[in-house]
Amino acid sequence: MIFSSALVAQIDELASFSDSPAPSVTRVLYSDRDVQARRYIKGIMKQLGLSVREDAVGNIFGRWVGSEAELGAVATGSHVDAIPFSGKYDGVVGVLGALEAISVLQRSGFQPKRSLEVIMFTSEEPTRFGISCLGSRLMAGSEELVQSLKRTVDNHNVSFVDAADSAGYKIHPDDLHNVFLNQDAYFAFIELHIEQGPILEKEGIPIGIVTAIAAPASIKVEFEGNGGHAGAVLMPARNDAGLAAAELALAVEKHVLESGSIDTVGTVGILQLHPGAINSIPSKSHLEIDIRDIDEKRRNDVIEKVHKSAIDISKIRGVELSEFKIINQDPPALSDKSVINAMEFAAKQLGLEYKLMISRAYHDSLFMARISPMGMIFIPCYKGYSHKPEEFASPEDMANGVQMLALTMAKLSLE
Amino acid sequence: MIFSSALVAQIDELASFSDSPAPSVTRVLYSDRDVQARRYIKGIMKQLGLSVREDAVGNIFGRWVGSEAELGAVATGSHVDAIPFSGKYDGVVGVLGALEAISVLQRSGFQPKRSLEVIMFTSEEPTRFGISCLGSRLMAGSEELVQSLKRTVDNHNVSFVDAADSAGYKIHPDDLHNVFLNQDAYFAFIELHIEQGPILEKEGIPIGIVTAIAAPASIKVEFEGNGGHAGAVLMPARNDAGLAAAELALAVEKHVLESGSIDTVGTVGILQLHPGAINSIPSKSHLEIDIRDIDEKRRNDVIEKVHKSAIDISKIRGVELSEFKIINQDPPALSDKSVINAMEFAAKQLGLEYKLMISRAYHDSLFMARISPMGMIFIPCYKGYSHKPEEFASPEDMANGVQMLALTMAKLSLE
Repeated sequence: MIFSSALVAQIDELASFSDSPAPSVTRVLYSDRDVQARRYIKGIMKQLGLSVREDAVGNIFGRWVGSEAELGAVATGSHVDAIPFSGKYDGVVGVLGALEAISVLQRSGFQPKRSLEVIMFTSEEPTRFGISCLGSRLMAGSEELVQSLKRTVDNHNVSFVDAADSAGYKIHPDDLHNVFLNQDAYFAFIELHIEQGPILEKEGIPIGIVTAIAAPASIKVEFEGNGGHAGAVLMPARNDAGLAAAELALAVEKHVLESGSIDTVGTVGILQLHPGAINSIPSKSHLEIDIRDIDEKRRNDVIEKVHKSAIDISKIRGVELSEFKIINQDPPALSDKSVINAMEFAAKQLGLEYKLMISRAYHDSLFMARISPMGMIFIPCYKGYSHKPEEFASPEDMANGVQMLALTMAKLSLE
Repeated sequence: MIFSSALVAQIDELASFSDSPAPSVTRVLYSDRDVQARRYIKGIMKQLGLSVREDAVGNIFGRWVGSEAELGAVATGSHVDAIPFSGKYDGVVGVLGALEAISVLQRSGFQPKRSLEVIMFTSEEPTRFGISCLGSRLMAGSEELVQSLKRTVDNHNVSFVDAADSAGYKIHPDDLHNVFLNQDAYFAFIELHIEQGPILEKEGIPIGIVTAIAAPASIKVEFEGNGGHAGAVLMPARNDAGLAAAELALAVEKHVLESGSIDTVGTVGILQLHPGAINSIPSKSHLEIDIRDIDEKRRNDVIEKVHKSAIDISKIRGVELSEFKIINQDPPALSDKSVINAMEFAAKQLGLEYKLMISRAYHDSLFMARISPMGMIFIPCYKGYSHKPEEFASPEDMANGVQMLALTMAKLSLE
């Protein structure tokens, strides 16, 4: 396992490109840190002799051309953007680990038949523009996304196009369609990722083989009231947009728990009050809600109930429900039997115990599944922590994941 | 009422010094806009021939020296700082209106016996450092404030001393004690202010004579949990700091309503989540709570209950209550009988109907009452709105307020 120490060093170096102090990582789409990370990844790709390509929005492709280059390639990859104050493994293990897998295969003398390709996807995280899996969603041909990117702005009113420009990507509206990939571009896509849940660690199993990805939905809500002075406006005269938001946050939790399934989860990760002064009654509140399930209908039922609660709260409190917008409501994805077979083959060859499992988190694989047979390899992570500085995967677990990925790709490359 | 149009023009000009677009006003302590406003006020003081002084933290004093300069002066004044996205009358009417009252008296040929003084207080609003009535609290001799100002920082980790320096006030720790005023500095202090409540407008009465100021308290609360990925951490494994905050916000409302008095008010004006991403369970939440009453004991009972709720919520949700800090818990203030008499005399002389009333909002007068006989004059404002862009006082009502203030000061000056 000589390669794991190199991988650990690369992970640490990449983590230093951060807008928040270590051990936390903050790396937001098209920021200077994101640009540094992109340069770093392209540098490693070039060291490995891969042929490097970037598309209009900055998805980065490093290809090891196979002996039968006209065949669909076997691809792998993940993302390196990081939400504010998160950790250094989410996404990164699937990019740097994939490059390490290529290196392992190169050093072993392996010659690919189908080309092998490592992809670094642009903006898996929704931090900047509220759109998750921006790069892979676009590669999978989302016309809706093409249209919305033309008018999307971030919280500082910077447009997507201007933000991309500042990172060195000059986008013309027509270029966005060029990001779309054909259905036969890839023979298979496999993503290596930390589990972001506690199961593998708890059960002492080194490898998870993902059979399905849970269906995520995200919602933006805004309430508006009259606001006013915190001392002067008496309680009966108030319509406090902040308290409406507080009630809705608790309603999300209630409806999720009432679904009756352990697989339903709901989160209010963003709750902002305006004007945000201690002596001012909130006149506006903004919530962003994330609801997921492995059962699409059950998830959509929860969304319905949350919508009804928002309407009820606005009536009872006399506030206006000025926005209730479902930003995305993606269907779940299933791993392809052919890819699962290759992963199970690899695990058996390597003598690694594995567990067939569901991904409750959201990945670029969800969208790659629309254009390619898809599979995912999970490795354990400390206490299941993710999206925070305590996120950790051991060098041994990462080494197992890299070997699994290398062997799976090698096998599929020869099919 | 020839003077009201000049006053309206000055109010509009001052409102243009704002960090948010009109009609809203944002003018935060020691910002460039605050510095512009200070220059503007000193300019008018000099035009009126007043003798201008500034103390270490930037309280500004403009004095019209009376014929018996050794006697305690009659002072008036208010503030010009404005919370984010607020209006242009709160505080400003009491500074520009006071200068207009001086101008009226000068033009009438009046000669003061006791000196007359207009004060522009530094940072009545707690926006930047979480400390309300910073200037007047310090003038009233708060040793506690002297100590805390030495280590206070804003949300961007800029210290109070550095912030003051950037506005041109070089503060040495000893200077802060020089801000303290003697008990005999003033014979009387009167503040002119918009009501910030709906009563005068609703009852059609042009003048309010304030007999007491309600007792305000402010509290900072922080909850901490484990956070984690919004998809991967199942509901039973969560300790969501954001939901704890939502519950506490609703508990504040509940306890306030249970006090049984219309005079009890409570507000959660600030509620912040960390890390603040849609796909991240909040690992930290921060609330700032404002609770007021005209009855100090009843207010303190509500604070007790809120504290108990915070503890209960932290236990039930398994989050840590990492902070519950009462930032201030000031006692109420009563107007002085001598000042009330002078205000009633002025109203009768001017033929203005008036109402004896309570100030539910917080003013520099609360602290000036500690070192001087105090009184306040209220004028009606549109729908009772304050701390928002729709805040409005009519030129007629402002003219009445200025005349009331001028005559009250003139009367007290000759006593």
